[in-house]
Amino acid sequence: MSDDVSRRRFDEARTLALSDGVFAIALTLLVISIDVPDLSARNEDELAQALVDRSGELFSWLLSFAVIAFLWVRHHGFFGDVARLDRRLTVLNLAYLGGVAFLPYPTDVLGAYGDQPAAVGLYAATLAFIAGVGGFMGVHAARAGLLSADGAARLAAEEEVMAWWLTPAIVLVAFPLSFLVGGWAALVWATPAVVPRFRRNAAH
Amino acid sequence: MSDDVSRRRFDEARTLALSDGVFAIALTLLVISIDVPDLSARNEDELAQALVDRSGELFSWLLSFAVIAFLWVRHHGFFGDVARLDRRLTVLNLAYLGGVAFLPYPTDVLGAYGDQPAAVGLYAATLAFIAGVGGFMGVHAARAGLLSADGAARLAAEEEVMAWWLTPAIVLVAFPLSFLVGGWAALVWATPAVVPRFRRNAAH
Amino acid sequence: MSDDVSRRRFDEARTLALSDGVFAIALTLLVISIDVPDLSARNEDELAQALVDRSGELFSWLLSFAVIAFLWVRHHGFFGDVARLDRRLTVLNLAYLGGVAFLPYPTDVLGAYGDQPAAVGLYAATLAFIAGVGGFMGVHAARAGLLSADGAARLAAEEEVMAWWLTPAIVLVAFPLSFLVGGWAALVWATPAVVPRFRRNAAH
Amino acid sequence: MSDDVSRRRFDEARTLALSDGVFAIALTLLVISIDVPDLSARNEDELAQALVDRSGELFSWLLSFAVIAFLWVRHHGFFGDVARLDRRLTVLNLAYLGGVAFLPYPTDVLGAYGDQPAAVGLYAATLAFIAGVGGFMGVHAARAGLLSADGAARLAAEEEVMAWWLTPAIVLVAFPLSFLVGGWAALVWATPAVVPRFRRNAAH
Repeated sequence: MSDDVSRRRFDEARTLALSDGVFAIALTLLVISIDVPDLSARNEDELAQALVDRSGELFSWLLSFAVIAFLWVRHHGFFGDVARLDRRLTVLNLAYLGGVAFLPYPTDVLGAYGDQPAAVGLYAATLAFIAGVGGFMGVHAARAGLLSADGAARLAAEEEVMAWWLTPAIVLVAFPLSFLVGGWAALVWATPAVVPRFRRNAAH
Repeated sequence: MSDDVSRRRFDEARTLALSDGVFAIALTLLVISIDVPDLSARNEDELAQALVDRSGELFSWLLSFAVIAFLWVRHHGFFGDVARLDRRLTVLNLAYLGGVAFLPYPTDVLGAYGDQPAAVGLYAATLAFIAGVGGFMGVHAARAGLLSADGAARLAAEEEVMAWWLTPAIVLVAFPLSFLVGGWAALVWATPAVVPRFRRNAAH
Repeated sequence: MSDDVSRRRFDEARTLALSDGVFAIALTLLVISIDVPDLSARNEDELAQALVDRSGELFSWLLSFAVIAFLWVRHHGFFGDVARLDRRLTVLNLAYLGGVAFLPYPTDVLGAYGDQPAAVGLYAATLAFIAGVGGFMGVHAARAGLLSADGAARLAAEEEVMAWWLTPAIVLVAFPLSFLVGGWAALVWATPAVVPRFRRNAAH
Repeated sequence: MSDDVSRRRFDEARTLALSDGVFAIALTLLVISIDVPDLSARNEDELAQALVDRSGELFSWLLSFAVIAFLWVRHHGFFGDVARLDRRLTVLNLAYLGGVAFLPYPTDVLGAYGDQPAAVGLYAATLAFIAGVGGFMGVHAARAGLLSADGAARLAAEEEVMAWWLTPAIVLVAFPLSFLVGGWAALVWATPAVVPRFRRNAAH
């Protein structure tokens, strides 16, 4: 019995250590997608101009940093409500981390080809995958009784407001639209799409 | 005595922190092996096509992400059964992490040259090394009495089913075969090869 | 009640795990900005000379390693005084980590174009952003009553000495000046600018 | 009093988290120094040959992985004997981590130019720096009374055998010699040079 409890705590501790590691690395690895300008003739105006020309890469870095940071807040909020893990939740969490670990690639493509539907579509599809798996983790945890009492109450209140498939749907439709209309608007759309769980996290 | 216990806990905590770190970084570092298409003439069809042309790199990323994720599940399951560490287990674990940390290189080679036996062979040899060291860690932990009572019982039950050298043997033979027959089949083979310990992890 | 306490501990533990991860990765990732010399004709004098020619990159590596290391000491000192987190402190901390995760890019630009105002300005602006957010975290934590009793006393004593906006102001003005006068002098300036909190950390 | 104890535990926990992070990343980041062969005409013999031609890079990867792994064992052994940290030990530890985080660069240079004294000298100098700072950490911890009772006894016994400056001296002289005589011999020399603390770690 006590062996079971320590085993469970061990499983949670290592799952969270791996998860925080993947989030921290994805957040930090993003920066290597911004290329240092390569100027043959070095003069001052040119460097300043070359740095400004990288604004597409800087924007996609900022977008992905904000997205991963808010995903981490959600992940952290969700696992604070989980009392125990089962096999399926572990596998779903690994798939979720796969989406997070993959995100630097669409970010890189978006930085280089931000004006093209294929780049925006790849990015939106990755976000929708993460949001979908994340939503499904909540559904599974609630059904399988993996939540703490407090967590179950909070999640039920949240589910009245929003179905789990709504976030990926919003991301798939609204994100590309607003991105193609005007890049920075996408940041506004992406943020509410990933943060519903955030508000309640501030309650305590 | 109490000093010994705290020392032991310290050793385990740092070994697991290092291990989780290496797993998390290997999982996340894989993505830098996928190159962003470099298009001189930018037109939409070309980017979509160039992304599809990367499917070899995407496949090797997916394969390695799945492999490392399942290796982490096994590692986590195994160390949950370990009650204390000795020098040899620490060294074996470092060799095991060496294999995990090396995996992004064969992944990269496989992504670029997936149709060639040398690329598949290098990947299979790396997997077989990891599986072999992992199997040997189990044998050593059982012989040297490093397992908890529960852990020893579980491992004994498992060993009746499968010798420790069986997994590397399967990987060395079946993985290249199925890969060369049809790439995606390798994912099916690689998965059971690395997950025997996984099933029982779900029991609690 | 006890549920709240464990929840709070969980939030702090994961915030610090993410923060330490980002610091550790930023510290280690810096090194990939130093390029290995690419010599077509390999002779001994040439390699030694080529390594010496990288001194600009080595200097910017050393500068950024020292800066991030001291920022970590401050961050660690600050969170040692924090008794609980609220939503705003979490968001400020993520913005702070964004600055730290971004630093390898200005470091890389500085290594390549250290003699140009645009490179020095980008670096100084990033440092000033980090210092400003860091200072604001202290102000917010004090106002919102998030500090421990000891921490509040220490921070009050410190604030008599130095306003929170002073560090970013120093960095923005003095750092570029001393860098352009003579690169290594910047290390001397950067160090006191980021370490005021450090002294008191040594008190216990 | 109790506040002081929790503060001390906090300092140790974050110092070790940062240290384990830097070790884990340095171990894993090494692999990106091994380049994937770039073959224009793809034929099988060529890939196998090109992979064999990378043996210099593979050797320097293996050398550095072994070195960092054994440094981690020493670091872990040393901090297991430390009862509390002071400012100087924190700064020394950051300098030590700087050496570890820098090691991928000399590794990369050694992989590309392993037959040249400048490459071997840079590598040996980095190792000697790490070993010297590590030795000095032991001396400082003993003098400043930072060790646990057990730790102080173990370190005293060790110091009879070996002065703290002996390891860097060995590394500076023996490593380049044996490397230039025959590369693989260096692995043998490097290993005993970094592992004296290791033996006793196995005692418990």
